[in-house]
Amino acid sequence: MRATYLYGAGDVRIESVPDPIIQQPTDAIVRVTRACICGSDLHPFHSAPPTERGKAMGHEYIGVVEEIGGEVSTLKAGDFVIAPFTYQDNTCVFCREGMQTSCPRGGYYGAHGVGGGQAEAIRVPQADGSLVKVPGAVDEALYPSLLTLSDVYLTGYHAAHQGRVAPGKTVTVIGDGAVGLSAVLASKRLGAERIILMGRHAARTDLGVDFGATDVVAARAEEGVAAVLELTGGEGSHVVIEAVGLMPAYEQAYGIVRPGGVISRVGVPQYNRAPVGWNALFGKNVTLTGGPAPVRAYIEAALPDVLEGRIEPGRVFDRTVSIDEVPAGYRAMDDRSALKVLVQP
Amino acid sequence: MRATYLYGAGDVRIESVPDPIIQQPTDAIVRVTRACICGSDLHPFHSAPPTERGKAMGHEYIGVVEEIGGEVSTLKAGDFVIAPFTYQDNTCVFCREGMQTSCPRGGYYGAHGVGGGQAEAIRVPQADGSLVKVPGAVDEALYPSLLTLSDVYLTGYHAAHQGRVAPGKTVTVIGDGAVGLSAVLASKRLGAERIILMGRHAARTDLGVDFGATDVVAARAEEGVAAVLELTGGEGSHVVIEAVGLMPAYEQAYGIVRPGGVISRVGVPQYNRAPVGWNALFGKNVTLTGGPAPVRAYIEAALPDVLEGRIEPGRVFDRTVSIDEVPAGYRAMDDRSALKVLVQP
Repeated sequence: MRATYLYGAGDVRIESVPDPIIQQPTDAIVRVTRACICGSDLHPFHSAPPTERGKAMGHEYIGVVEEIGGEVSTLKAGDFVIAPFTYQDNTCVFCREGMQTSCPRGGYYGAHGVGGGQAEAIRVPQADGSLVKVPGAVDEALYPSLLTLSDVYLTGYHAAHQGRVAPGKTVTVIGDGAVGLSAVLASKRLGAERIILMGRHAARTDLGVDFGATDVVAARAEEGVAAVLELTGGEGSHVVIEAVGLMPAYEQAYGIVRPGGVISRVGVPQYNRAPVGWNALFGKNVTLTGGPAPVRAYIEAALPDVLEGRIEPGRVFDRTVSIDEVPAGYRAMDDRSALKVLVQP
Repeated sequence: MRATYLYGAGDVRIESVPDPIIQQPTDAIVRVTRACICGSDLHPFHSAPPTERGKAMGHEYIGVVEEIGGEVSTLKAGDFVIAPFTYQDNTCVFCREGMQTSCPRGGYYGAHGVGGGQAEAIRVPQADGSLVKVPGAVDEALYPSLLTLSDVYLTGYHAAHQGRVAPGKTVTVIGDGAVGLSAVLASKRLGAERIILMGRHAARTDLGVDFGATDVVAARAEEGVAAVLELTGGEGSHVVIEAVGLMPAYEQAYGIVRPGGVISRVGVPQYNRAPVGWNALFGKNVTLTGGPAPVRAYIEAALPDVLEGRIEPGRVFDRTVSIDEVPAGYRAMDDRSALKVLVQP
């Protein structure tokens, strides 16, 4: 089969490799119907050191079960499935608490002998816990939105959920990438009264407005903070969703959050230390939350919203590539000519 | 009257000054019945630069209203009152949201022309919003516990409340000072299943056990983290209350918090930047919360617990001094020969 590997910064290659096979009785093999490129894939694309052995890429995919191991009990060949961007047993104490990204038997794709989703097929560990079957016949028009339940929409949802978005609240989303726009859509779905989107790319913020943003702020840094404070009568935002992962976004977040408010981060932080003292967080009782989204916890509840057309998160995809065009897809997302790239193997 | 001033590190003086008078129609004058020394008073006691004009000290007191300004409508001379450690109007949008410590018309004692509570009397700004009347005749035996509603017990309560302590949860409290012990008592009151107290002073941790701690861990740093992880079957603590304010306590906190758990800080952080990246907080979806406690939001609910004897948070006081002995009280708290010092003017 054809699959995607990263050999260092900027060096994405598509290679022919043996088809995956069952290794553990809890495995399944899935033929990938659609995959995509994640904003987080761009971090190693920017900075990974060169390696002789490439790293398998991709962690978002939907597909059809081809084969199951002897201990897989909830799936069968032919099932159409959504794969959360981590695998997990979905039975351990952390999974039962909705923290599937911390499952001790779980993990991330592209490591520890597990391949990536930007491929024609993939071996899925802990298949019973990891794959969610979509019931009935699946309309191809829904593929993009179903694929977002693998990561991007539900990562935005996680941000809103952890931020305790609710009716009557003002939410500010920092970042007009696909996760930020997903957070807008999720905040709308959770009933936010006002959604301020901070972003500078009109095509993206326009989609944000379609998704429910009530205000768009293009200014950044101190000017951006001042603009949001003005929009909120000087009070600040109940919830700030930080969907970038860089320090300037963090600094913006604590500038605009309301006393007693929440900063919810879902952009993987590209920094370790940050201001958390009296002036940044403590003095105004700001809560800082977020992390890798346990999307497995949210898929069942979101699925009817997609299947019945109440939300269309798949609109974040603005380009489709074949497997062999995946390297071009990385470049397009990197130079921002594409918002999010769908892969059709 | 006699009142307490700090002229620099280690330099606490008791001085004779004019009695306070009404300055604003929203003021009240309160004759102080009991005050106390706060762990947070020790920070300037350690490090304040020398000044020619002393800073008025003390922010925890109970007392009797002596005089009210023309616009004060809910109090009268003779009322027995508890004063939250900040003043606030209790009507603004932040106060209504339970964030009285962020009231734009509120503030901290000992600044902006407002005196301190370690004195025989005090002018209280925004008296209607700031003072809570205790109904009926007040038994002197209850004075210590009522005084803790001014700050220390309800600061511990705030930590537990922000940490979402609830039945079934494991709470670890870092710090066996008066706030830490109060957090133990509040966690017990909120139904925590297990309360692990990290502290090294047996007399204090013994009181913590009386307050509801189920386990005591004397070890610190990596050893302390390992001990708590062992006690929790390797899973970590749902809630970690950080009642110290120093970086080693913060580092301990993220070492022992459970995936998806909460670190709730009420020790005023003596650092600005701290680890918040993948390994510290983000990777396991840890929530960081806390800040100066809006005790005004909690007093009414806690008052019956004290008046009816369900809790006795005043047990944190282990020494009583007169106003003239306040400097000795600071030294006793500083050298840890006293846990918390009550002031009887």
